[in-house]
Amino acid sequence: MSLPPETTVGEIGERGLLRHLEARIPLGPGVVVGVGDDAAVVELGPLVLVTTDALVENVHFRREWAPPRLLGRKALSVNISDVAAMTGLPRHAVVSLCLPPAVTLGFVDGLYDGLLERAAETGVNLVGGNIARCDAGIVIDVTLLGQATRVARRAGARPGDLAAVTGTLGAAAEGLKLLGQGARLDGDGNLASTGVWTESAASAVAACVRAHLDPRPPLGLAHAIAQRDLIHAAIDVSDGLSGDLAAVCRASGVDVVVDSTAVPVDPHVVQLTRARGGDALTLALHGGEDYQLLVAIPPDRLGDLRELAAVWDLPIAVVGQFEEGPGQVMLKSADEVAPLAAASHDHFRRLLAGGEE
Amino acid sequence: MSLPPETTVGEIGERGLLRHLEARIPLGPGVVVGVGDDAAVVELGPLVLVTTDALVENVHFRREWAPPRLLGRKALSVNISDVAAMTGLPRHAVVSLCLPPAVTLGFVDGLYDGLLERAAETGVNLVGGNIARCDAGIVIDVTLLGQATRVARRAGARPGDLAAVTGTLGAAAEGLKLLGQGARLDGDGNLASTGVWTESAASAVAACVRAHLDPRPPLGLAHAIAQRDLIHAAIDVSDGLSGDLAAVCRASGVDVVVDSTAVPVDPHVVQLTRARGGDALTLALHGGEDYQLLVAIPPDRLGDLRELAAVWDLPIAVVGQFEEGPGQVMLKSADEVAPLAAASHDHFRRLLAGGEE
Repeated sequence: MSLPPETTVGEIGERGLLRHLEARIPLGPGVVVGVGDDAAVVELGPLVLVTTDALVENVHFRREWAPPRLLGRKALSVNISDVAAMTGLPRHAVVSLCLPPAVTLGFVDGLYDGLLERAAETGVNLVGGNIARCDAGIVIDVTLLGQATRVARRAGARPGDLAAVTGTLGAAAEGLKLLGQGARLDGDGNLASTGVWTESAASAVAACVRAHLDPRPPLGLAHAIAQRDLIHAAIDVSDGLSGDLAAVCRASGVDVVVDSTAVPVDPHVVQLTRARGGDALTLALHGGEDYQLLVAIPPDRLGDLRELAAVWDLPIAVVGQFEEGPGQVMLKSADEVAPLAAASHDHFRRLLAGGEE
Repeated sequence: MSLPPETTVGEIGERGLLRHLEARIPLGPGVVVGVGDDAAVVELGPLVLVTTDALVENVHFRREWAPPRLLGRKALSVNISDVAAMTGLPRHAVVSLCLPPAVTLGFVDGLYDGLLERAAETGVNLVGGNIARCDAGIVIDVTLLGQATRVARRAGARPGDLAAVTGTLGAAAEGLKLLGQGARLDGDGNLASTGVWTESAASAVAACVRAHLDPRPPLGLAHAIAQRDLIHAAIDVSDGLSGDLAAVCRASGVDVVVDSTAVPVDPHVVQLTRARGGDALTLALHGGEDYQLLVAIPPDRLGDLRELAAVWDLPIAVVGQFEEGPGQVMLKSADEVAPLAAASHDHFRRLLAGGEE
């Protein structure tokens, strides 16, 4: 079926769109029945990981900010991050789309370009899904199945364990601000506009916007960690380091003291906030959507973790240490130790807030 | 946490609502890690069924028509129907909710009353989910995992096989009309209003509205069928008999001839359409949302199927026979055989249409 990309979803209809998409989706390894039947049948187990996460228009994304291909990549990546945080391997995904009838086939195909591309990169099969009409806006809801022989939970951090973070923090939150200020990527992920910034800041702007629109959870490292039994607990940094540390402390029944000077603030965020006078550390502590891995690791395994992470070119920052306590997160600055409140966003209380400081 | 039911989702916040719901959800058999971590971990396999289906406000339901408890039941049941149509056993579900901030805790709790109740009835564990803000309306998106040793697909019907349907057809479509005419159920599923009908029609009205709001797919029968290897193909009657027969014919590469006198029109629909002068057969052929099972079965296995179905008090109607052909559905009436076009609804082309004839 070769329909022009400006054909709308309303014109092609639910079944027409399903058939169009089914023709695009390959049958991968371990898939017994793929898209097109009542349910998919996959080979998996005996331990199966299940996670679900949705991107909602005007809550998690704006259509004018995110090329559809990057939206498709991110819809899968945010779920991959949850499987990585259990140190599992993602395997099979179903995609439930809610679409207004005026959405074009070009948009849906762009979305699937991204979904399929990201699926191929991470060894995931798209095995089914659902399409429903939703007049108010687009919802991209992905449920991802994974496998694991050993899982890392949020519970399990012990007093004396180090709190270690992969990669850098704050770039995605900075990227959201930049999108609100007019910065844009094209469908290939290249910078199309720097927004309010001059060309000299272009590479920092691009890096931050890319971190927001196309996050890359450290999947390979997470799975390698599981195979070596290096850690006691793990979570992905999605709500912000402060909120996710609090979740580990609550689940594990321990406190943590964070060293403010050890937080791996993304260097591009440092560059941009220095130029405009903002606070890079706040973004790194509370910004969220970093999709890095936060682990509780015994001090004597840190060397092994660093060695593994080097294979993926990922820095490991020790941001603090867990200790006995009722579940509090404390921040140690130059001359004081004070409780660090989780200031991560709650979408029910705040709308998508690009551009505000 | 004992919050008043009129507390809104906006007031309690995403994390507050998550914690409230987590406390309500039990850890069932085969669940290693339930709600509250990055991903759920379940025991399942080696063959895993996956299906996803969403209920979207003002497309699939109206809040004033459906008590939240019944909405929760239906959100799970429509997915159970897909697993039953593969002759599998449903096991674990994740629930992804999109909620406007003004939705009350009482509504969400009612929804979970229904989800948990239906889950307990069908041996399903709720193992996780997601809550996202969505200002335009409620979306209840359920992904259900099941298990099977042998699956029945849409493909597989052979020339000579009988097309057989469980239960009766047309009641859910009639129920949708009745809701549009003011008929209502209360939260317990009892008739609260007959709408335009007199009390003498009350039991027929209640049966049809209940069929629409609280469908019961023949799960036990479906699984028993799988254990005896009785059938060649199966699908659930969700889009309407005409459309679902067409899907089996297309997937199997066969035609089917339907005998119009053999279609198991629901007796309550017959009663109500006789009183007002409508066409009960059209509702049974095209109405949809029956969530019964349509199977392709060799004639010599029909007796076994009827015997099995009797255990669940389910009638089995042979509506036609498959024959060689390019994939067409034909309808045989008194004096002619004519192509039967699939006239089932497409939500992208028509809004939820209660009350119209």
